[in-house]
Amino acid sequence: MTGAGSRIEKLVVIGVGLIGGSFALALKRARACGHVVGAGRSRANLRRARRLGIIDSIAPNAAAAARGADLILVAAPVSHFGRIFSSLKNSISATALITDGGSTKRDVIAAARKGLGKKSAQFVPAHPIAGAEKSGAAAARADLYQGRRVVLTPLRENSKRDVGKIGKTWALCGARVSAMGAAEHDAVLAAVSHLPHLLAYALVHDVAARKNSKQLFSFAAGGFRDFTRIASSHPEMWRDICVANRDRLLGEVSRFSRKLRQVKKLLGHPEKLEKLFAEAREARDKWIRSS
Amino acid sequence: MTGAGSRIEKLVVIGVGLIGGSFALALKRARACGHVVGAGRSRANLRRARRLGIIDSIAPNAAAAARGADLILVAAPVSHFGRIFSSLKNSISATALITDGGSTKRDVIAAARKGLGKKSAQFVPAHPIAGAEKSGAAAARADLYQGRRVVLTPLRENSKRDVGKIGKTWALCGARVSAMGAAEHDAVLAAVSHLPHLLAYALVHDVAARKNSKQLFSFAAGGFRDFTRIASSHPEMWRDICVANRDRLLGEVSRFSRKLRQVKKLLGHPEKLEKLFAEAREARDKWIRSS
Repeated sequence: MTGAGSRIEKLVVIGVGLIGGSFALALKRARACGHVVGAGRSRANLRRARRLGIIDSIAPNAAAAARGADLILVAAPVSHFGRIFSSLKNSISATALITDGGSTKRDVIAAARKGLGKKSAQFVPAHPIAGAEKSGAAAARADLYQGRRVVLTPLRENSKRDVGKIGKTWALCGARVSAMGAAEHDAVLAAVSHLPHLLAYALVHDVAARKNSKQLFSFAAGGFRDFTRIASSHPEMWRDICVANRDRLLGEVSRFSRKLRQVKKLLGHPEKLEKLFAEAREARDKWIRSS
Repeated sequence: MTGAGSRIEKLVVIGVGLIGGSFALALKRARACGHVVGAGRSRANLRRARRLGIIDSIAPNAAAAARGADLILVAAPVSHFGRIFSSLKNSISATALITDGGSTKRDVIAAARKGLGKKSAQFVPAHPIAGAEKSGAAAARADLYQGRRVVLTPLRENSKRDVGKIGKTWALCGARVSAMGAAEHDAVLAAVSHLPHLLAYALVHDVAARKNSKQLFSFAAGGFRDFTRIASSHPEMWRDICVANRDRLLGEVSRFSRKLRQVKKLLGHPEKLEKLFAEAREARDKWIRSS
């Protein structure tokens, strides 16, 4: 990634979980990187990542890891980004590039500008839309990004060339790369990702809190299982996403509550209720066919 | 099923879709039935069912089908049950038994008592918890009930012997059979099945109705896909279920709306929000492990 070449001699992954680990594995498989250094909070997880061949060595912290790096991926829960960017500021070279795997972008960008100062021009934000309810290095896979979307939300201070490089790197992982503004990104994801997660967590929590929860779970079937799959997602990561995107998410919750009141009324109007169900099914089936 | 034997010489399936067709296929595979007669609204579907070997012959209507039957399964949308039971009343023999595949039970029982009169003693209500978003004869499979729950909600006028026979027949399909009261059944299913369906339909409908729906769907990923899978369910069937179980479902919608207001407040309290997420994940993972 230094100079004219696109080879990443030293790749640093901060937070070697599903997102970070899969990025390293995908670039290794594409023969696009040399040495991979991992840093993160859990030594046990880092050792597992090294044993699994995801990373080649372990750095004691983000600053030490970043020295001499060509590319740094920050893939920690978003509430840690401020601290991480601050510690990168004085250790990255002038040619290093940084990208990330955060699911929210306005807060990540604010943290980068605060933590990196003028060096924020070296940071090209990205959101790989490839979550899973699994987490940790053991969940990482070289093909996680195959055919998945990665959204770049470039900064005005980024050079076109750097945005191009980061886009190319994600594309090497197999991803379909596109770009949009950070505010638009956060609004879109609040609707189709953050709200469903919140609804799934809320439903499971409500069922689990009842006196007859054991009975309720014992009669829950495949529909409930799939509907609530995302309620098995990483609590800390989702806490951070929901808090970081709180304004947009509040708007979505209010909107959905209104929709529920409307649907509630339709329970007294069978034909209208069926029409809503039929329209929803048609929209979903159309989406599934096209995706 | 007549006399002392448990062999069903003539099985009648009214509504040869996923539920009815799979019942016939499962009993055929278990060599528990002889001739299978199908009846239903769609001739095209009945012809497909015959072509697929699900039924052996087609009757012009429910009354004609039921003559001489040992066992009749009613597997139509629940709003049709009143008409079907009325037409069965004068054509079933004194030894015939009826069971059903309806997802709600209080309304089905009321329809049976009204339509069958004193012969309601020959009807043992059942709910096979084995739905899918697929419907029609083409979706039927001999193994649909394998390991799935079937809940009987016996009537006080049923004989123990008849309840035993119907339970045994569902068990022959591979199901885990249990029994509970109809009101309890409807309350349990409202929470773990009917509410999630309503939420999934509502979310997809809301997203589809927006100006930027195309963009929203294009960034929706696996979480959204699984969360909304049940929004591809049969609209007429789900209209009937929601209307039939309206009182319980209204209660569940109100309860969930309260839960959402609580979760909304927690967006300002990161630690409490994470605690809720962690508890929900733990409850779900425990359920998945045990099921």
